[in-house]
Amino acid sequence: MRAPSRAATGALVLDLIRTHGTVSRVELADRSGLTAATITHVVRDLIGEGLVHEVGRLTGGVGSPRRLIGLDATAWYAVGVQLDRCASSVVVTDFAGRRIASAGVRGVGRGAPADTLPELARHIDLLLAGTGIARERVLGVGLVTHGPQDREAGMVLTGQPTPEWREFPLTATLSALLDLPVLLENDATAAAVGEQWVGALDVDTFGVLYMATGIGGGVIAESEVYRGRTANPVEIGHVPVDPAGPACACGSRGCVEVLAGPGAVVHRALDDPALAARLGLDGGLDAQLADFQRVARAAVTGDRAALALVDDSARRLGTAAVTLMNLFDLDTVVLAGPGFGVAGPLYVERAQEAVEAGALARLLRPVHVRLSRDVRVSAAVGGALVVLRSPLGRPAAAPAAPAAPVALSSA
Amino acid sequence: MRAPSRAATGALVLDLIRTHGTVSRVELADRSGLTAATITHVVRDLIGEGLVHEVGRLTGGVGSPRRLIGLDATAWYAVGVQLDRCASSVVVTDFAGRRIASAGVRGVGRGAPADTLPELARHIDLLLAGTGIARERVLGVGLVTHGPQDREAGMVLTGQPTPEWREFPLTATLSALLDLPVLLENDATAAAVGEQWVGALDVDTFGVLYMATGIGGGVIAESEVYRGRTANPVEIGHVPVDPAGPACACGSRGCVEVLAGPGAVVHRALDDPALAARLGLDGGLDAQLADFQRVARAAVTGDRAALALVDDSARRLGTAAVTLMNLFDLDTVVLAGPGFGVAGPLYVERAQEAVEAGALARLLRPVHVRLSRDVRVSAAVGGALVVLRSPLGRPAAAPAAPAAPVALSSA
Repeated sequence: MRAPSRAATGALVLDLIRTHGTVSRVELADRSGLTAATITHVVRDLIGEGLVHEVGRLTGGVGSPRRLIGLDATAWYAVGVQLDRCASSVVVTDFAGRRIASAGVRGVGRGAPADTLPELARHIDLLLAGTGIARERVLGVGLVTHGPQDREAGMVLTGQPTPEWREFPLTATLSALLDLPVLLENDATAAAVGEQWVGALDVDTFGVLYMATGIGGGVIAESEVYRGRTANPVEIGHVPVDPAGPACACGSRGCVEVLAGPGAVVHRALDDPALAARLGLDGGLDAQLADFQRVARAAVTGDRAALALVDDSARRLGTAAVTLMNLFDLDTVVLAGPGFGVAGPLYVERAQEAVEAGALARLLRPVHVRLSRDVRVSAAVGGALVVLRSPLGRPAAAPAAPAAPVALSSA
Repeated sequence: MRAPSRAATGALVLDLIRTHGTVSRVELADRSGLTAATITHVVRDLIGEGLVHEVGRLTGGVGSPRRLIGLDATAWYAVGVQLDRCASSVVVTDFAGRRIASAGVRGVGRGAPADTLPELARHIDLLLAGTGIARERVLGVGLVTHGPQDREAGMVLTGQPTPEWREFPLTATLSALLDLPVLLENDATAAAVGEQWVGALDVDTFGVLYMATGIGGGVIAESEVYRGRTANPVEIGHVPVDPAGPACACGSRGCVEVLAGPGAVVHRALDDPALAARLGLDGGLDAQLADFQRVARAAVTGDRAALALVDDSARRLGTAAVTLMNLFDLDTVVLAGPGFGVAGPLYVERAQEAVEAGALARLLRPVHVRLSRDVRVSAAVGGALVVLRSPLGRPAAAPAAPAAPVALSSA
């Protein structure tokens, strides 16, 4: 543990205002543990920087009315981009983190990043142009991809989806193309951040099972992202759950992803020629998620063969939800990501059954599996939030301000 | 995130001094992020409370010599107790966290807590009497048991090892028997805290696989215990890893514990009458860990049938180490607990092979499985450390001191 810096104190207060919408200085002191004097200083700075403004007064209590403050939602904007082999998306949010524009984008397929990123930059330019937002009001881009990543270097550390992606300077290249700062984040972690923000969950500790073309996870513990040693945590897709299962590219056998992911379901569907023909499956690698959604749609509309495949996948993801709960001590797991776009409710049902039968937390309190409010874009929204919560989210604050003590209350 | 209180600031500094042994005020400011002025205040308080003293001067650098401070190791003492069905232990540590006495104690077997705790209290009394430490110098007892627990209420929430244990007021009863404060902690978490202290690890983020009669886990992330929602995290013994495995009492099928724990190994050994007779296995429930150690000893001394059983257990625990690494983003896992007392090196070897083949972190950096420096008592030592790091560890600090601001440096 280290004591927070002045910049961290400002970010803490800004985040509390963003989360609570409209809030008084007294509430901010209560929730932050900072003294009233520090809150007064910090809020004055934030007002001076044009990030926060007074929005009214709360009357009716004892004493003088409390002045309420809120973010200036139109002060700044952020972009979030979720990249996936089969389905990508782009969102623009305002300074309060509300989505004001979004677009689905073609997956990166087997394109090299040098070809993919210019196309992506054009999509972002178009989306921003459509909103009418002045370019200089955009704080930056949160680029959300699979892991493992080196977040600081802005690179993916594996050759997925093609060898060219390994250690390609993703954020530097996109930043040069857009003339905007770009931050890198793990897709499942971004989904958890997005869920924390838009999901209106009643807990500050929860997990996310993320399914796009692959399967990942994220955990928020006491309102903070669980990062681990190198910010590549919660790889729930690569947890071995069946020694009789097939070998996985990760090196283990019978991983969750290789048994239950979209690719596994599509493989099994293609093994049934009648089913594959009935559903018009493409069978191509880049069509994997679209093929999976075809199987999922058939499953939820009564095709027995399709249902058997999706049901098996859902039961296995239910076991993964138990693993997540038992290891991270959770009572809430959210299913997010485009993979849940069609059969999400079926996955929730099976996973809820699994955690009620096997999660240790059920012995102590109710356990819940929920579907993300916006399975398709919560990761992209999370990417934009990562920008808003980073130092980029306070553009007028001098990064090298002179040292000044911050008063803390005694508790 | 909340700003730290004055009490937390004192605890932070005390812990830094405990961890680093001998340290200057300048180093403390560097490592804590607190200002030099705050460090001066806090250290003055700690010296006034008799917890810290000046131990010398560091000369040879530029400017005036730095005064070095250290804990007064003999100021206070703490007791740690690790309870297990088959093998318990008690330790006494000094204020610096160094073990000064320890004793193995009979496991709790199938005794009810009302019978077990008075016997345990007598053992603690005897051990303390043997050290010659004045009773009023003992800060308290860290009681370490299996989970799930309600740490604040000082209770275990399951009827293990017997129904009477569920919600029995463990800490209140032991506290009344000893006339000492008692805190409750999870055994695997305590082992992680103990390992953090005695293990001299070079990372601040690591996991522990704990094996006594059962299997549990603990994670230290950025030097802090990962607690989750209710302080019952990292139940690696209850992660389903084989759908073809037997049903587990937890509700799942094919959990790590039911496949690889001491009980599973002993069950399989008893299924081989020649092996059971050769090793003189008892077969009783309370002798499970002793029987397991007999199998383990035979395995490491060349009995092929015993080796096959232990090797299978070790391979499965290796898979569990992969799961721990992939979910918590670790590159170091420590094996701790009395279950590793005999065949620990064999378990390390198999787990090292497993993580080198399947842990994602291996793609980025070396991954390590290590054996605890003191497999039998690291959890009990961790229990004592929990006391030292709690508010009990600062007995002279007025709990309701008037509010005073603490200065933080800008970083």
